[in-house]
Amino acid sequence: MSDLPAEFALIARHFLPLAGPGALFLADDAAVFAPPNGRDLVVAADAMVAGIHFLPDDPPDLVGRKLLRTNLSDLAAMGATPLGYLMTVSAPRATPDAWFAGFAAGLAADQAEYAISLLGGDTTSTPGPISLSLTILGHVAPGRALRRAGARDGDGLWVSGSIGDGALGLLAARGEIADPNGTLADRYRLPRPRLALGQAVAGIAHAGMDVSDGLVQDTGHLCRAGGLGAVIEADSVPLSPAARAAGRLALCLTGGDDYELLLAVPPAAEPALAEAAARTGTPVTRIGGFRADAPRVTVRAADGTVLPLATGGWSHFG
Amino acid sequence: MSDLPAEFALIARHFLPLAGPGALFLADDAAVFAPPNGRDLVVAADAMVAGIHFLPDDPPDLVGRKLLRTNLSDLAAMGATPLGYLMTVSAPRATPDAWFAGFAAGLAADQAEYAISLLGGDTTSTPGPISLSLTILGHVAPGRALRRAGARDGDGLWVSGSIGDGALGLLAARGEIADPNGTLADRYRLPRPRLALGQAVAGIAHAGMDVSDGLVQDTGHLCRAGGLGAVIEADSVPLSPAARAAGRLALCLTGGDDYELLLAVPPAAEPALAEAAARTGTPVTRIGGFRADAPRVTVRAADGTVLPLATGGWSHFG
Repeated sequence: MSDLPAEFALIARHFLPLAGPGALFLADDAAVFAPPNGRDLVVAADAMVAGIHFLPDDPPDLVGRKLLRTNLSDLAAMGATPLGYLMTVSAPRATPDAWFAGFAAGLAADQAEYAISLLGGDTTSTPGPISLSLTILGHVAPGRALRRAGARDGDGLWVSGSIGDGALGLLAARGEIADPNGTLADRYRLPRPRLALGQAVAGIAHAGMDVSDGLVQDTGHLCRAGGLGAVIEADSVPLSPAARAAGRLALCLTGGDDYELLLAVPPAAEPALAEAAARTGTPVTRIGGFRADAPRVTVRAADGTVLPLATGGWSHFG
Repeated sequence: MSDLPAEFALIARHFLPLAGPGALFLADDAAVFAPPNGRDLVVAADAMVAGIHFLPDDPPDLVGRKLLRTNLSDLAAMGATPLGYLMTVSAPRATPDAWFAGFAAGLAADQAEYAISLLGGDTTSTPGPISLSLTILGHVAPGRALRRAGARDGDGLWVSGSIGDGALGLLAARGEIADPNGTLADRYRLPRPRLALGQAVAGIAHAGMDVSDGLVQDTGHLCRAGGLGAVIEADSVPLSPAARAAGRLALCLTGGDDYELLLAVPPAAEPALAEAAARTGTPVTRIGGFRADAPRVTVRAADGTVLPLATGGWSHFG
């Protein structure tokens, strides 16, 4: 189903170099590969649209890498090991060749970093903005996938890395806040999927997911999946120096694009978690805990005050 | 990565009923499933954009079914058995709920017909037209996938069903040609992926693919993949009564959207092909053959005249 006049040449020039052995040189109707013996398959898909999920003038290599990494973050959240991906690209006919070249170069860089390759896809024209869709395939030992359901009363709520840089980075990329050394915009444009930690916490965490829609909302997902409540101690939430300097706590707690892991870990497993964090070089921080309650998230300030939540998110504060 | 305010409600209402067991109720970061033991996996992805691949006022149930069936046709072309699919939907915020309801109803109907289910995906907004992307997963016995490469000198060129109805159907759907009983528009809107035939010709056909970009162009793909030429006898190409009445032979041979299978079959395997066609209830027709030659397609009229080809397609004739 091709409709770009130069589609075949475009694929040969930019996407064929990304193809792995199973992709049959992108010349067949589908890719064929033998799944790893005795492993479960893990699959996820995400879409990104110019003007919605990335800025139209974002460097195309970073757009490619973000597309791949948001999907890799979904695999990290399941404790899975990446295998490969399929991708569809719908672009206006006037899209310059240099955009595709940069986009493919970004994908190539991350393919090398994550040891994966392109398995197949489709390229079409669109009268609208560039629309990208990526399906990631990975694998996990049977029964070892990290799930959203499973948190228990008394589990600690843990998060990797730091929270809020992605949401602040969007403002920085738009020039709306200061970002002296560019670290915030970098975090917005280039997520760091926590694959090693995700794989390391199988058998340690009772439940987990990645933070993509905002810390509070995603904690709510763990609560609903587990049928219990959670308390977040706002002062414990790890902020980068740049985020601390920005002083926008509410945005940090509710903005998206963090791509950190959020874990429910029983106290007895904390030494094992510390060992997994050290072994994978991933900082983790306890930011609160789960308790028998209705499935809701309570955010507390250092003085014990409950910070106000509006329906589906925050009323503004701080 | 959700940005539609009511995304979760929309997913719960329309897409959750489509989810299979491995989809974890679409509530986790990814789907997990055990691939069939000892089988190779077959994966393909296609994108469809409103105004390019379907008409904005096409019934949404048929849009859903076409999206699924164009991908199923890729599995048919590989001789694979469908397993499930992931899908991303980018839609304008003003898209009425009834559109999603119809779209999901079409998918549900075809899930039942093809015994597959939704494994996961993503729903986002877009300032552009509705943009859909679907990744299909299937499986095949190791080494038995039907490939584009493999045609040999002396193989017959065979096609299933009839050719040209899809391309004529687009004109009919636009009201540009007559379509008294609606069969042409129906063929455009609702492909019939040839899954049973594709699975039945493993070990019979030397090579194969599905016809999606037009008979002549796709025959060219088999020629390039096999390093040989092909002759199509124009009078042998099977046309439906409606296509015959339309009298647009050039369009039939070069238009797309057929979703029939195109096969390279050695003469000695013709009885086996006839048996496979009868067993699966799929008509097949010999429309020409492959010969040692440069990779090119020659189309001959009944009187032996070579019909003129323009670069990358047809100059108009007939």
